[in-house]
Amino acid sequence: MSEGLNVSPLPLAGGAGGGPETGTGNPSPNPSRRREGDYRADFPGLGDSWHYLDTAATAQKPQVVLDAIARAYGPDYATVHRGVYERSANMTLAYEASRRRVAGLLNAASENEIVLTSGATDSINLVAESWGNANLGAGDRIMLSQLEHHSNIVPWQLLAERVGAQIDVAPLTADGQIDLDWIEENITEQHKLVALAHVSNVLGSLLDAKRAATIAHDVGAKLLLDGCQAAPRVPVDVQDLGCDFYVFSGHKIYGPTGIGALWAPYETLDAMPPWKGGGSMIDRVSFDGTTFAPPPGKFEAGTPHIAGAVGLDAAIQYVEAIGLDTISAHENATLAQAREALSGINSVRVFGPDQSMGILSFAVGDVHPHDVATILDEGGVAIRAGHHCAQPLMDYLGVPATARASFGIYSDERDVAALVDGIERVRKIFG
Amino acid sequence: MSEGLNVSPLPLAGGAGGGPETGTGNPSPNPSRRREGDYRADFPGLGDSWHYLDTAATAQKPQVVLDAIARAYGPDYATVHRGVYERSANMTLAYEASRRRVAGLLNAASENEIVLTSGATDSINLVAESWGNANLGAGDRIMLSQLEHHSNIVPWQLLAERVGAQIDVAPLTADGQIDLDWIEENITEQHKLVALAHVSNVLGSLLDAKRAATIAHDVGAKLLLDGCQAAPRVPVDVQDLGCDFYVFSGHKIYGPTGIGALWAPYETLDAMPPWKGGGSMIDRVSFDGTTFAPPPGKFEAGTPHIAGAVGLDAAIQYVEAIGLDTISAHENATLAQAREALSGINSVRVFGPDQSMGILSFAVGDVHPHDVATILDEGGVAIRAGHHCAQPLMDYLGVPATARASFGIYSDERDVAALVDGIERVRKIFG
Repeated sequence: MSEGLNVSPLPLAGGAGGGPETGTGNPSPNPSRRREGDYRADFPGLGDSWHYLDTAATAQKPQVVLDAIARAYGPDYATVHRGVYERSANMTLAYEASRRRVAGLLNAASENEIVLTSGATDSINLVAESWGNANLGAGDRIMLSQLEHHSNIVPWQLLAERVGAQIDVAPLTADGQIDLDWIEENITEQHKLVALAHVSNVLGSLLDAKRAATIAHDVGAKLLLDGCQAAPRVPVDVQDLGCDFYVFSGHKIYGPTGIGALWAPYETLDAMPPWKGGGSMIDRVSFDGTTFAPPPGKFEAGTPHIAGAVGLDAAIQYVEAIGLDTISAHENATLAQAREALSGINSVRVFGPDQSMGILSFAVGDVHPHDVATILDEGGVAIRAGHHCAQPLMDYLGVPATARASFGIYSDERDVAALVDGIERVRKIFG
Repeated sequence: MSEGLNVSPLPLAGGAGGGPETGTGNPSPNPSRRREGDYRADFPGLGDSWHYLDTAATAQKPQVVLDAIARAYGPDYATVHRGVYERSANMTLAYEASRRRVAGLLNAASENEIVLTSGATDSINLVAESWGNANLGAGDRIMLSQLEHHSNIVPWQLLAERVGAQIDVAPLTADGQIDLDWIEENITEQHKLVALAHVSNVLGSLLDAKRAATIAHDVGAKLLLDGCQAAPRVPVDVQDLGCDFYVFSGHKIYGPTGIGALWAPYETLDAMPPWKGGGSMIDRVSFDGTTFAPPPGKFEAGTPHIAGAVGLDAAIQYVEAIGLDTISAHENATLAQAREALSGINSVRVFGPDQSMGILSFAVGDVHPHDVATILDEGGVAIRAGHHCAQPLMDYLGVPATARASFGIYSDERDVAALVDGIERVRKIFG
């Protein structure tokens, strides 16, 4: 069944330091493939006749992730950070190994700069509630863009309302990129934060994050990058990008649901007040006054998502064993095929830049995207239709919704062919 | 291997209404047993020679939960609430079925009274940040008790500091119960909230929750119950108890990590402002102003812990198939054996009431509890030693820490015997 191209577990990338590995929950990722570049067989959620093109919503999971989760809930199961007994000590090592794995993925300077959260939304809300409440006040401004996901809009709206700040919205260029020229011209010293998608979840536009960081820093603002779509698709080096906060979700990088991460420099985290209170985030609790643990513990109240951390570690190992450059090249090649095929179909309109990252939004004439998705589903092609949690972008594009095909490491030309077949069927049905 | 006592999946308990079941993620719980009352074989995390007595920290998982999670991440995997395609629609049904299952467990009046969170800590923080910020102000008071878990202390301390409220701490009775007489005498109309553990995580004390509700309501205060230790151990009927908020964690009721629940009456949830902003919790987002979804969606920002919800559903089905009365009786019988055995050992001091719920804290002479736990671990007995995230209770008991043995459905007299053997070894070593 497989040519058995075994990929050894990668050592942790340089920036995150070393430290002991644990036998618990660290599977050897083994992307077994029927042929080079064919990762489908690694994913038990994908059959031969189903074409999953909704990876931007959530990625399917490789078997190594399922295996790691099964071990974590089975023979390895125990709590972390508290138990004196051996299995709990091992699980603590596994949990902290996951934190180091995330630090390596982002090239953080230290694993203590990684807060494990319940997802990117939780991460952004943490920044808004903790850093935001402490650092923004009346008259301050927040710079967002027209293409942000609701999770990178609503927390800032809630913050702005709490503290009396204002939000500015950067427009897009004609091809659907965030207009950094506009931001450069319009940003002021009142702006304390710029929060932008590293890759758009609708258009696939890749931000020039280094330039965004320079623009933000020139007025003393911080830059938060929403890396939900970027982390699974492009190599991310937070030190090289020069951003101040980076967030992503585990389930979009082939990992478990209910887990994600926030990166920020240690000094930033250290200066931030606690957000959620509870067990583990404290130093000493008394009714006379409570003191808090240093980061990242300060932001991880309660029993964490232990199996989620172990599964995320396995997912990142899987991704790193293939290599984000390889994933990026593979998705771009698949996307280019799709873009070319769709551009050859009369009445299909494609949104976004030519160089979109694994994500392709489109319309078929004036057929409602939900009808497009429903007809595609009948042919075993799963795309998403809707506002993609980006209603302001829909308003900007002048459409109520788009159809969106999004690709992952397992997507290939068979999926593109099925997509094209489905669109042809839509055109026949709607004449 | 098994007598094959098959237990059919239970129908949903009355209060939560009916609704379609889905084939996705709803396994038939089948507690196969070697003999009546022996559930060990259902738990792949338990070997024959390991004695897990840390169930109050986190419960082991039955195979049906692992199987449900594996299906959710494998052949059934898709996102919820968004996808037009069939598998996503099925996963949405499974996710909402989990919500109904939780509603049934607590006898909520409607599944729309259940918010799925990342755990009890997240649930309490939600109440503190949303309901608390909106309903408490300077001069208001919050009534807690001396035995609360940090997760039911720190969020209220942070709230009190934000709004200028004060916290009162109810003492305990001589046998380690929350002193409701004291609360009744000392509660005032300044008190807006009483927040108490339904079962103490250190002493196992069971609160007279109905009386607590009456006392709170008599002055117009709300009652929040921390049900982390109660939900896996006693039947809970929120309507009968008359409380106003109920929270618990999935991982303590034999379910996944990273998921928990908050119950509150719909009108309460409906009047509460949003907390975390993001996808799914909105009605309509625009930069001119955002409107929010009705509860429970309003409080579930971002892609939820999909596999966690599916696993929680399976865990509750497993628990309900055995029956909480049966679980309660089984744990109480095991605990009574342990209490009797320990009370017969010279130099062992046992904390808490005689009728503790599945949890037994103790000291062995003046041996440090960590040493007790370490020696027990060498003999394959896993207990917890420490402050159990309840430092104010340790202060009250006049000890830095306790040793704690806590029992679950799978615990039996073999575990008790191993515990006693271990304590005898501790006594020998420390002479």
